[in-house]
Amino acid sequence: MKIAIVGAGPAGSLLACYLVRRGHQVEVYERRPDPRRYDDEEGRSINLGLSARGMRALTDVGLMAEIQPLTVPMRGRAVHAPDGKVAFHPYGNRQTEILHSIRRRDLVISLINQADSAGVAFRFDTTLSALPEADAVVGADGAFSTVRTLMHRGARADFRQEYLPWGYKELTIPTMPSHHEALHVWPGGDDGLIVTHPNLDGSATATLFLPYDKLAAITDPEAFFAERFPDALALIPDLAKEFAERPVGHLVSIRTAPWHHEGQVVLIGDAAHAVYPFYGQGMNSALEDCTVLDACLDEHPDDLAAAFAEFERRRRPHTDVLDELSRQNFVELRERVRSPLHHARKRADLTLARIFPGRWVPLYTMVSHTTTPYADALAKAKRQDAVLRWAAVGAAGLAAVAMLARKVR
Amino acid sequence: MKIAIVGAGPAGSLLACYLVRRGHQVEVYERRPDPRRYDDEEGRSINLGLSARGMRALTDVGLMAEIQPLTVPMRGRAVHAPDGKVAFHPYGNRQTEILHSIRRRDLVISLINQADSAGVAFRFDTTLSALPEADAVVGADGAFSTVRTLMHRGARADFRQEYLPWGYKELTIPTMPSHHEALHVWPGGDDGLIVTHPNLDGSATATLFLPYDKLAAITDPEAFFAERFPDALALIPDLAKEFAERPVGHLVSIRTAPWHHEGQVVLIGDAAHAVYPFYGQGMNSALEDCTVLDACLDEHPDDLAAAFAEFERRRRPHTDVLDELSRQNFVELRERVRSPLHHARKRADLTLARIFPGRWVPLYTMVSHTTTPYADALAKAKRQDAVLRWAAVGAAGLAAVAMLARKVR
Repeated sequence: MKIAIVGAGPAGSLLACYLVRRGHQVEVYERRPDPRRYDDEEGRSINLGLSARGMRALTDVGLMAEIQPLTVPMRGRAVHAPDGKVAFHPYGNRQTEILHSIRRRDLVISLINQADSAGVAFRFDTTLSALPEADAVVGADGAFSTVRTLMHRGARADFRQEYLPWGYKELTIPTMPSHHEALHVWPGGDDGLIVTHPNLDGSATATLFLPYDKLAAITDPEAFFAERFPDALALIPDLAKEFAERPVGHLVSIRTAPWHHEGQVVLIGDAAHAVYPFYGQGMNSALEDCTVLDACLDEHPDDLAAAFAEFERRRRPHTDVLDELSRQNFVELRERVRSPLHHARKRADLTLARIFPGRWVPLYTMVSHTTTPYADALAKAKRQDAVLRWAAVGAAGLAAVAMLARKVR
Repeated sequence: MKIAIVGAGPAGSLLACYLVRRGHQVEVYERRPDPRRYDDEEGRSINLGLSARGMRALTDVGLMAEIQPLTVPMRGRAVHAPDGKVAFHPYGNRQTEILHSIRRRDLVISLINQADSAGVAFRFDTTLSALPEADAVVGADGAFSTVRTLMHRGARADFRQEYLPWGYKELTIPTMPSHHEALHVWPGGDDGLIVTHPNLDGSATATLFLPYDKLAAITDPEAFFAERFPDALALIPDLAKEFAERPVGHLVSIRTAPWHHEGQVVLIGDAAHAVYPFYGQGMNSALEDCTVLDACLDEHPDDLAAAFAEFERRRRPHTDVLDELSRQNFVELRERVRSPLHHARKRADLTLARIFPGRWVPLYTMVSHTTTPYADALAKAKRQDAVLRWAAVGAAGLAAVAMLARKVR
């Protein structure tokens, strides 16, 4: 069968690898130029945190060994307090429970090369105004998907698009003085948030998130940093220049249904479900979509309509949950990582996970270090929370009994 | 100033009347032909229930006296039980607390004539692909607004579009045997809902609402009615023919933000907020938008940007509440109007309203028979509900005390 994929980002080029392996004739259309020839990222987020779901997909298509050397491990969060102190919190108990920072560009080029050498035809610099001619079209063309618009035209489609009232700017830290192998966080509450990803050359990419009104009100970025994030100021030598030159990025959440139209069109990645970036799962969930869609094609090899319907049925409940988790983690990153109680709870979670290996798994671990479907992970975490609450009630009850017993004596 | 309005429906043609009165040069663009020349409603809902908000707006522009004779009063709901019994429940205590059934077409023609004779220029059969040339453009072009799409292009706009998984068909009841001056309801739970609006000629328009799968599964409409709505079957002589010929209507809810772009563009009516039809407030809220926008223009006569911003600030919280109320009333119409408890609660509400006139006002009365803003109405209703709950607790407490007192004696 001839299958056209629109969009040569991580999801589109990975799916091309999966589909060409199934024996299909695959063409990929991409509005932008070939990234192997031009270095143009249009102000897109440069760094991504590869986690278990993304790695499973890359392993599936035989690319993980090639991609591994392009990544920097992130072993935990390095949280910066206002007084400049840095506290390191590991992501998990095991050596494998880490994230891998990678440049989006490096990942995409590896995927395109792999697909290209397997016989996928890439058409770069191609803007579509109608669906391409093919037996089926895959919309992997991002949050503002043209394929989705064309597919939903005149149809009863549900759609929700929501912008976070915060924008972001990317800034460069040439050298991170400590904890290079970590995701650094400056939690600033309602006044901003900085997150950094490490690069192979020892530098790090910092992303400053701020409410739009506060971002627009900054006339002197150095004065702003001196007041809000004084220890970060020292790390960004080109602050004033970069702040002036770099565009403001926007954050959008998108949910929609249906994801497919008979056996003709199907959406994957951001085209089907865009999330805020605060759980680091946007790209991982897009890569995982390909794994799930491939499994559905396995079950219905001769019936695309059944495969696409099964894909949406099986996958959408989980990406809906990811949307919720990504919103909650925004609060966690900017607020709770400052609170000692939060870290006590996290430590308790990791301790329980050590005592009951495989039976007690913190939510963050399930989302980032396993391939447990998102909604199943959330359901299990809720059961664990209930156990903890009852344990706390039980402990309080025992303490009360002990006190009464002492009085009686 | 030259102001272009896109859409000559109820909201667009009413706003034209308001704006021409302010001394503006007003042009109205409409995709469809002039309804005064052609009878083409494109399968749109033919009947509307005019309530206090709509009537205030029509009174404002001096049209109510002309429109009144085109309406049929609806004094309450006539609820049909499965056994064929009909129970009448008045909408309110007073003669004025009624709704007025009107054909959409009659209302629109009156508004267009009024605007036309005041000097508004109408451009029918005109499809726009760009915003028209004017000092400001008003998008009154419905749920699938082109003006909204053009205004939001490339902007950080929030948008949510949701289809109810129920469709509808309109059917004709040539003569309603009893309670002509009522809105008839056949509540069928998950199996369907029929609502009727009376017409001037003694006929009524029935709307059958059904989940899409059940609607699609009907091969013999007469057999379906015989099983589900036997007493309605007898009233619709052309059932088989109409069921086959009439299109399936869809129900969409839309919320979006922003509603305006500087002083250049503003959205009203369904273009800004489309609701499910179950509170009968879709058109009334669209007409009320014009009243609110006119008040904002009064406050900022020389500053459209300020007037449009104030309109959105003042109005959107209320139409958001209307969206919620319209969803809840769908449940009420198809489920609760069958329950004796529901009617007991309604009667208690009306009794309290009689005892405390003006101080106790049921939610339905506030929404339909007053111009209290929707969110204020909901807040007041919640306070009243709390009082009722405490009164119930108080009564139970008094009863308990009385019982104890009796035992002690």
